[in-house]
Amino acid sequence: MKIAILGLGTVGKGVLDVLVNNQKIITARAGEQIIPVAALVRDLAKAKEAIKAYDLANFTLSTNADEILMRDDIDVFVELIGGVDLPRELISTLLKRKKPVVTANKALLAYHRSELEMLAKDTPFGFEASVAGGIPIIKALREGLSANHIEQITGILNGTSNYILTNMMKDGLAFKDALLSAQKLGYAEADPSFDIGGFDAAHKLLILASIAYKLNAKPDDILIEGIENISSDDIYFAQEFGYAIKLLAIAKKSAQSLELRVHPALLEHSKMIAKVDGVMNAVSVWGDCVGESMYYGAGAGAKPTASAVISDLIDIARKIKSPMLGYKDTSLQSGLSLVKSDDLMSKFYLRLRVHDELGVIAKITNIMSQNELSIDSFLQKPNSSKADTTVYFTTHTCKQANVLKSLELIGRENFVVSKPFMIRIEK
Amino acid sequence: MKIAILGLGTVGKGVLDVLVNNQKIITARAGEQIIPVAALVRDLAKAKEAIKAYDLANFTLSTNADEILMRDDIDVFVELIGGVDLPRELISTLLKRKKPVVTANKALLAYHRSELEMLAKDTPFGFEASVAGGIPIIKALREGLSANHIEQITGILNGTSNYILTNMMKDGLAFKDALLSAQKLGYAEADPSFDIGGFDAAHKLLILASIAYKLNAKPDDILIEGIENISSDDIYFAQEFGYAIKLLAIAKKSAQSLELRVHPALLEHSKMIAKVDGVMNAVSVWGDCVGESMYYGAGAGAKPTASAVISDLIDIARKIKSPMLGYKDTSLQSGLSLVKSDDLMSKFYLRLRVHDELGVIAKITNIMSQNELSIDSFLQKPNSSKADTTVYFTTHTCKQANVLKSLELIGRENFVVSKPFMIRIEK
Ligand SMILES: NC(=O)c1ccc[n+]([C@@H]2O[C@H](COP(=O)([O-])OP(=O)(O)OC[C@H]3O[C@@H](n4cnc5c(N)ncnc54)[C@H](OP(=O)(O)O)[C@@H]3O)[C@@H](O)[C@H]2O)c1
Ligand SMILES: NC(=O)c1ccc[n+]([C@@H]2O[C@H](COP(=O)([O-])OP(=O)(O)OC[C@H]3O[C@@H](n4cnc5c(N)ncnc54)[C@H](OP(=O)(O)O)[C@@H]3O)[C@@H](O)[C@H]2O)c1
Repeated sequence: MKIAILGLGTVGKGVLDVLVNNQKIITARAGEQIIPVAALVRDLAKAKEAIKAYDLANFTLSTNADEILMRDDIDVFVELIGGVDLPRELISTLLKRKKPVVTANKALLAYHRSELEMLAKDTPFGFEASVAGGIPIIKALREGLSANHIEQITGILNGTSNYILTNMMKDGLAFKDALLSAQKLGYAEADPSFDIGGFDAAHKLLILASIAYKLNAKPDDILIEGIENISSDDIYFAQEFGYAIKLLAIAKKSAQSLELRVHPALLEHSKMIAKVDGVMNAVSVWGDCVGESMYYGAGAGAKPTASAVISDLIDIARKIKSPMLGYKDTSLQSGLSLVKSDDLMSKFYLRLRVHDELGVIAKITNIMSQNELSIDSFLQKPNSSKADTTVYFTTHTCKQANVLKSLELIGRENFVVSKPFMIRIEK
Repeated sequence: MKIAILGLGTVGKGVLDVLVNNQKIITARAGEQIIPVAALVRDLAKAKEAIKAYDLANFTLSTNADEILMRDDIDVFVELIGGVDLPRELISTLLKRKKPVVTANKALLAYHRSELEMLAKDTPFGFEASVAGGIPIIKALREGLSANHIEQITGILNGTSNYILTNMMKDGLAFKDALLSAQKLGYAEADPSFDIGGFDAAHKLLILASIAYKLNAKPDDILIEGIENISSDDIYFAQEFGYAIKLLAIAKKSAQSLELRVHPALLEHSKMIAKVDGVMNAVSVWGDCVGESMYYGAGAGAKPTASAVISDLIDIARKIKSPMLGYKDTSLQSGLSLVKSDDLMSKFYLRLRVHDELGVIAKITNIMSQNELSIDSFLQKPNSSKADTTVYFTTHTCKQANVLKSLELIGRENFVVSKPFMIRIEK
């Protein structure tokens, strides 16, 4: 089976490396050799340097997409360029010509998976690498759990954010120091906003939710909050009360509706997913037959991602073709409506920085009760004669709109020092 | 797609139940309806009672295997009788007739998977339910991780044992009380020896190892130890020193050889798999590309097992057929030799009950050093004037033969009160 790699960056080079080094076992499992014969690159000199280490016979490097795409001897194309528009164009062209494609591109799928599903009706299209890198979660959801109604998916899908939060929690680092440390180790980009803002996790959540629920939502349709505003105060509270703080990607079904949301959350330490630390990813899935199952592993990196890409290639060699999103009838509609953020129900943790003066707590709790927030716990540490103090509340289950309204009203009071902050508490 | 269920017990009824109740979602995912049309049973009256709740049109109950097996209108047969000889006969007959089969039968596969692999060359044969119930670990190993050399598999594969050990650890129960509690809750059989003796876990380990390594070992070929002799003393030690005690099933590869072993082990609490408690199962897999990934979920029960059985049925409906054990060339040999138990290298924990008298420790450590056991730590608690005391050692990495020899020699000494006991410490 001859393949072309489109884009010879981190993952592209990883795929080449594993195909060459694990060739024997891959051939035994695939039933035939998987041979890289061409790569589409942007910089020929750089690419030549990159492939020098491998003894590749008859391997073409080209900067011309058409030249590679039109080659009839290539059986499968692996898209590892990244971005949305160009990959969309290349992959569409290929699928229309019934050429099998494998990609790791979550951004593309977050926006255009429905369109690609149509094109991939009769043509293999693998994207295992697009969610949670080395963890075969696409396959688990689409095939392993296919007998189940999926009740909930809770994922730690962004290693950068999990690394930062773990470091804040375990080493007491402030957010900006934990981010710096992640950047130094190559776990965070120079511009980290896509990861720490929750967008990367949201892309992956949308892909998983499509398989579980046949629902074609876009990133703009769902709640996305990042971890930028988590402070040492929040870490202190979490530690005191037996919580971990994680950036969670959640899909949760009720009778006729579905919650899709990405945000930091307080999670009891005893939960299996709360124990997932550092750059590792994990996805917990609740099915009506199996109950909870969890999938844990490396979420990114050249080799884990290559492992997923090549598993898709081996499936293609084995002539295994599942319906792309798990449903033969691509026109099927879930009938589920998305819950609006305002209507989300949750317990909340609230952190308020206020002047330490008489009557403040009464005013705060007054606003809360007027907005139907029922308080579950309250903490104010003894204040060694400073003018300001931090007060913490947790609420019973209540409506998000009411919490935001309360925080806005409280934020307008003179005794408030900085913007009130909330984190959802996940059951 | 018409199916027959052979054996309408716990799992058989579970499969029927899920096929009926989740029919709509299963049809959407499979692309066609999966219709149970017949069951092979032993007691007709009991079976009639069991299926009364379902509105099954044209459903045949029969006590005659031939009658059902020879029916040409049945597309797939689901074997859920259990045992080895009868299922072997039935399944062989079916595969020879190129009839697809799905089974949950780990005992059958532990002994006869190689023979079945030949028969299933061109015919779908699913056995996802045979290992770790609801966790799609067969699929993960065979397809998801197919690009990897598997370096190690460590599994908690027996829920009964894990439940007992968890209760000893968390509630301070003695072994026999924890076993009683498991029996009361239906987590342990009246005769629990198959589970607590490690045999059930060994069957499952052999199945996983075949997929990872293409190695056809039998239960008699490998080290199997149970949890029957774990005492409160061991639990005390584990807790003091930050360990969990788990019944582990381990496959571990070195250059030319493979360790396959089932035994209780001390595991550092910080390890992900050490956090798996109660009846839950988990499998950690180390691949050379992905690093560690872990799969966690319900290991048994009617519905989780049915979930796995039906996922195999849906794969068959989708025309997905992987090579049964993951290798197209069924005659392939791993070339790995099994490490003999005597040659296993490990750290060990040793527990000795001895008379509290002068010179005892000197004699013990003397025997150890003569047998090349190097001591890593030693613990003897202050003894409030009792005649006997428990002493604990841990060793550096050493050869199992040397440990057993030392314990045998120490056991012969007059100062020893009860049989010396060891548990391996797993890194
Ligand atoms: N890295 C991970 O751990 C990971 C994990 C999961 C999924 N993914 C996904 O995998 C994909 C690739 O990620 P990556 O980390 O490998 O990115 P990368 O290192 O930036 O690689 C992308 C490669 O594509 C090349 N390229 C860009 N535009 C091109 C064009 N028009 N023609 C030819 N080549 C072009 C780039 O060339 P230049 O070097 O000249 O820019 C670069 O070599 C992305 O969709 C990403 O989301 C990555
Ligand atoms: N239970 C689990 O959680 C679980 C999990 C994973 C795998 N499995 C595997 O699944 C299989 C079934 O387990 P199970 O728990 O469902 O066992 P079970 O409850 O004992 O069911 C077996 C059924 O087969 C029937 N049977 C026995 N011999 C028969 C014969 N000659 N002809 C027709 N019917 C016959 C039995 O009838 P009677 O009722 O008359 O005895 C019984 O109804 C086993 O291989 C087991 O290892 C079970």
